[in-house]
Amino acid sequence: MRTVFWDYDRDVMKMIDQRLLPFELVVPEYETYQAVAEGIRDMVVRGAPAIGAAAGFGMALAARQSAAADRLGLLRDLEAAGQYLEAARPTAVNLAWGVRRLLRVAAGEELETADEVRDALLVEAQRLADEDVALNRRMGYNGAELISDGDTILHHCNTGALATVDWGTALGVVFAAHEQGKRIHVLVDETRPRLQGARLTAWELQQRGISFDLIADNAAGHFMRAGEVNIVLVGSDRTAANGDVANKIGTYQLGVLAKENGVPFYPVVPTSTIDLDLPTGDLIPIEERDMDEVLIVGAQPIAPTGITARNPAFDVTPHRYVTGIVTEAGIVYPPFVKNLRAAVAAAKAIDWDDEIGVE
Amino acid sequence: MRTVFWDYDRDVMKMIDQRLLPFELVVPEYETYQAVAEGIRDMVVRGAPAIGAAAGFGMALAARQSAAADRLGLLRDLEAAGQYLEAARPTAVNLAWGVRRLLRVAAGEELETADEVRDALLVEAQRLADEDVALNRRMGYNGAELISDGDTILHHCNTGALATVDWGTALGVVFAAHEQGKRIHVLVDETRPRLQGARLTAWELQQRGISFDLIADNAAGHFMRAGEVNIVLVGSDRTAANGDVANKIGTYQLGVLAKENGVPFYPVVPTSTIDLDLPTGDLIPIEERDMDEVLIVGAQPIAPTGITARNPAFDVTPHRYVTGIVTEAGIVYPPFVKNLRAAVAAAKAIDWDDEIGVE
Repeated sequence: MRTVFWDYDRDVMKMIDQRLLPFELVVPEYETYQAVAEGIRDMVVRGAPAIGAAAGFGMALAARQSAAADRLGLLRDLEAAGQYLEAARPTAVNLAWGVRRLLRVAAGEELETADEVRDALLVEAQRLADEDVALNRRMGYNGAELISDGDTILHHCNTGALATVDWGTALGVVFAAHEQGKRIHVLVDETRPRLQGARLTAWELQQRGISFDLIADNAAGHFMRAGEVNIVLVGSDRTAANGDVANKIGTYQLGVLAKENGVPFYPVVPTSTIDLDLPTGDLIPIEERDMDEVLIVGAQPIAPTGITARNPAFDVTPHRYVTGIVTEAGIVYPPFVKNLRAAVAAAKAIDWDDEIGVE
Repeated sequence: MRTVFWDYDRDVMKMIDQRLLPFELVVPEYETYQAVAEGIRDMVVRGAPAIGAAAGFGMALAARQSAAADRLGLLRDLEAAGQYLEAARPTAVNLAWGVRRLLRVAAGEELETADEVRDALLVEAQRLADEDVALNRRMGYNGAELISDGDTILHHCNTGALATVDWGTALGVVFAAHEQGKRIHVLVDETRPRLQGARLTAWELQQRGISFDLIADNAAGHFMRAGEVNIVLVGSDRTAANGDVANKIGTYQLGVLAKENGVPFYPVVPTSTIDLDLPTGDLIPIEERDMDEVLIVGAQPIAPTGITARNPAFDVTPHRYVTGIVTEAGIVYPPFVKNLRAAVAAAKAIDWDDEIGVE
């Protein structure tokens, strides 16, 4: 099952509710773009590529909801729906990216009627989702070259099928290495405060029968120093032109500790999240989220009542800690300023019709 | 109220049950050394100095429990009780240290009757506890020289009154700076897996009205890189002759991150925990505790059922990351091999009678 998908039998969108995992697997239906926006805001769905796909299907829903009989009326309604969706999580780059991609298709001159636009949007949303899966598999097999038989991989947060439409980014490299028959072990850090490692990555590895142990975030450095880690794999929400990587809080620490212990550190990054207009990661504002994420685990308070917490959701790992960056166009090494630009260009030349199998 | 103490009205030992903090303050009575051993094993009490004091009072209880009428019979019973207590937590150095100190007093030639031994043991246990408090206050004021008005201090685990008989070690430095009228702020890391920072350090700072924020362990490096941390203070369970520090898991990461960001990193360490016979910290075996500490928070599972976790309780921070070591005999700087030896000698020359006010 994909994380975000269109159910063609029931003609609705569906998303796995990730807040309930690993204890319950619930897949609610979405019939309106407003409900999708709410799901994005409340983190039913998370992970940049999955949010992008949810935005795509959300726009397809918006087209069906609109009562407009003519093309221009529908485009006006879609513009409003797009703004509504984008506001659900303003810092999620892929959300705006997904909305705009669908708006561009809707504005295509060759579409003459409102119903032609409606049909085209669902086709495009499905294509966006299919491309994500094809891209992830390709990226995973690119990265799997870095993994040797017998390796132990340290992994942060969740970057698996649940963070994407399917397969995943950094965890997709793990899946590819496993599919290649390499015997691997994963140290899964729990990733406080939201515990995406403990809840989601552990669940995905368990489902696929891959060997792993959960560890507290505090233990990552100890295992690196003890020589028990061969490679660190992380995702990235946004990568600057110089190779600085913005990702889940705690990534920076892993980068520093990996370098200090001579362990290779590779972000796994679709080129869509590389921002060539952003010269350095220090320009990325760090979102601080609700302090209750730190103060409460599930329903259970872990600290005295009446205290305050600080909760930066992301951090920036400077490129000097980054060994290389795995993309769908291959593995990029320093100098990143030059080589990331080349990778983005190479990725644009990939024929996704061919990869997806569209004729 | 002290963490571990003798109630002279009721003639019993009492300990704060730290497992229930910060939600309930419960102070059970202990009438037998077996119950004390159970409390140590189940972590009613934690922190090296507090465990040492509990061992002292436990031996005083053992003397009262023994039915022996003669001195030699009592000494035999005390030897057995000491072994029972020491087995409660074999890696706690201060446990054995407290037991042996009481056994030495019991064996004193000047004690002629069993009842004289019984009285002497309670006096010695009380003195051990009083010395700990005097030592901590002295160490705290030594360390407070490092804190400037306006500083933000990053603190790991719990090293406060609750980890000792009273006042604390690293957190005692914070209390001393606060008593001196310095305006300080503390970033309290939660310290997974057992959350001593979130539960205990947050509670102690709240009780004393000191400004602080709780953070996830993952955020420590981010705040250091952002320039928001002036100094890192940690405790130590065992310090090697070369200045390597064994302490709660996660300490090593903070040491590396502090050095990388030019932030001073100071363990606060009673000289009793400096082991001059241990040349390097790499010889210290790392205890792995029950994996349920990682898999369950309070009563709440945080990961899928049926998975495994690894749970190293301690790590070793090599001395190259240590700026200086705060002791009761002053602040020790490199070269540690020479200067720690001198500090241990200087500490032995301190007149604790004078500090405690014994006449």
